[in-house]
Amino acid sequence: MSEAPSMQPFIPELRKDIITREWVIISRGRGRRPTDLPVGVPEGAPTTETCPFCPGNEGASETLLTLPDGPTGWQVRVVRNKFPALIWKAEVTRKESGIYDSVSGNGSHEVVIESPDHNLDIWQMSQGQVEAVLDAYRQRFIILEQDPLVRYVLIFRNHGLGAGTSLAHPHSQIIATPVVPHYIEAEVDGIKRYWEYIERCPFCAIITQELATEERLISQNEGYVAVTAFAGRFPYESWIIPRRHQPHFRDTTDAERASLAAILRDTLGRIAGALNFPSYNYALHTGPAGAGVDSTFHWHLEIFPRVTTPGGFELGSDLYINTTTPEDAARALRESSIPAG
Amino acid sequence: MSEAPSMQPFIPELRKDIITREWVIISRGRGRRPTDLPVGVPEGAPTTETCPFCPGNEGASETLLTLPDGPTGWQVRVVRNKFPALIWKAEVTRKESGIYDSVSGNGSHEVVIESPDHNLDIWQMSQGQVEAVLDAYRQRFIILEQDPLVRYVLIFRNHGLGAGTSLAHPHSQIIATPVVPHYIEAEVDGIKRYWEYIERCPFCAIITQELATEERLISQNEGYVAVTAFAGRFPYESWIIPRRHQPHFRDTTDAERASLAAILRDTLGRIAGALNFPSYNYALHTGPAGAGVDSTFHWHLEIFPRVTTPGGFELGSDLYINTTTPEDAARALRESSIPAG
Repeated sequence: MSEAPSMQPFIPELRKDIITREWVIISRGRGRRPTDLPVGVPEGAPTTETCPFCPGNEGASETLLTLPDGPTGWQVRVVRNKFPALIWKAEVTRKESGIYDSVSGNGSHEVVIESPDHNLDIWQMSQGQVEAVLDAYRQRFIILEQDPLVRYVLIFRNHGLGAGTSLAHPHSQIIATPVVPHYIEAEVDGIKRYWEYIERCPFCAIITQELATEERLISQNEGYVAVTAFAGRFPYESWIIPRRHQPHFRDTTDAERASLAAILRDTLGRIAGALNFPSYNYALHTGPAGAGVDSTFHWHLEIFPRVTTPGGFELGSDLYINTTTPEDAARALRESSIPAG
Repeated sequence: MSEAPSMQPFIPELRKDIITREWVIISRGRGRRPTDLPVGVPEGAPTTETCPFCPGNEGASETLLTLPDGPTGWQVRVVRNKFPALIWKAEVTRKESGIYDSVSGNGSHEVVIESPDHNLDIWQMSQGQVEAVLDAYRQRFIILEQDPLVRYVLIFRNHGLGAGTSLAHPHSQIIATPVVPHYIEAEVDGIKRYWEYIERCPFCAIITQELATEERLISQNEGYVAVTAFAGRFPYESWIIPRRHQPHFRDTTDAERASLAAILRDTLGRIAGALNFPSYNYALHTGPAGAGVDSTFHWHLEIFPRVTTPGGFELGSDLYINTTTPEDAARALRESSIPAG
């Protein structure tokens, strides 16, 4: 049974669990990516010459978009991830191995470098900078969505070691997948059922109730409402929801994204203040790619501060124990002051 | 909007997400539990007089079971968790808050103190000690299952800071829930569908294939097969599956549990050797409580080494990226030697 591990290039695979029928991505190369965040080294370490995302090192990655357009003086750059979970334009193959099935890991994995500055979190960036980040999200989404093999585009951000970041330079990521991920499918399906039963959108219903009771309200502006989630899986889980029923983030206007940039900076700043600069993730949930005709979805952004570690109960049951009531969390976030920048 | 956080005792709640229709447990008290594992302090710190699980401190917790029976000289003790996620015999109440629903957090949360010794992982314990632990699991399962409000009993273990442990003394936990958790429901349902389509149990099919190909085989003994999961969510995710189709762990014989103790010690020892003593969780998946007539389920134990941190992609999509192929992991575990004890 003993043989040397294979060194041939490994094309990522999507494999389906034969019991739960949920997909996983098996991506061997990704485990070899570099990190400049070893445990114990504080974040915000000085810009290093080796940081692949810092100005001057543009040659380290394949550029997909720069804002403003041009080789230098960029505010935001989107590059192809050098250690991708999925491969752009990989050959589409299916493999049967007895009872098991897998497909080649076709898709895209991109990095949105959010600033030339090595040491800023989103809430510390200028309003214009965050607007440029959101503009980059939208532009790449529109391009990726055109690929007929792409079923979903997830835009997300990992901040801090506890959130799975491997590089300190501020960045988001975009992964385009050839399947609709389970959690999104559950949302899409749940929203449709809610429409069927109650004849309205559950996110519109949430906005109405949260503005009326203010129990879980964090803040609001012209375009958006920020609330803690009534049944949040994580302490301080916060959702930013557009007031207007809008299925797709890509259909936002410039003015709507300016309003989103403002409430995103405000909410992340409040979280930094209330929880002493925690690690966090966010994920942008928008309608499935190409689903132009179905207008039931209501896009939104979910923020997950990482202040507790899910254990065997959560991993073994997918039933989460949240140790802070969403009402206490909202109160703390309302009263939180954004740290001096 | 400013008011002091409420200090009245908080009965945990189960809340249902109105969109995904998945439950979460909101358990405020649980966030206040003590820890003797501050970040940076090595595990296996010496037994402290303050450890609530060490001999001599039995008065600190309500005892539910001791093996062998008696106030002193115990091998294994089961106690009620002092910071429970769910409350035993809580009043059953339902609450409607506009569009949202919640129920009181009725259930049980117990701690299995696995040894009088403060500093042992499972694979370092004697065969007889681990048999006693498994016997305690079974005895408590049988008692909890008798409560008509209990729909599921999850037995799980958190080892190490990266796995969500708060106390170093070796222990497992048992949580009895008034709902069938989502992941279990997906398994129960998936197994039934597999039977319908293919006329056999998927876990029996897995055993047949894994023993034939040996691609993901870790080890085997009289009663059990240990494999890495073909579509595992986590690197080195390992499953221990009984050879015999058996829906419920509680129906194991003494001889079967002896065989399980042996392969569990062996598998966890291999993981400790291959991954340099990682944090890990395991969860025992058995049929839903009281589901005596449905014999489709095939109980098993899932082990999740915690060598990577799920990020915004996983949290936002429930689609996991596993950076080690299950075949490479199985090879490493076959070749691993169990560290000297």
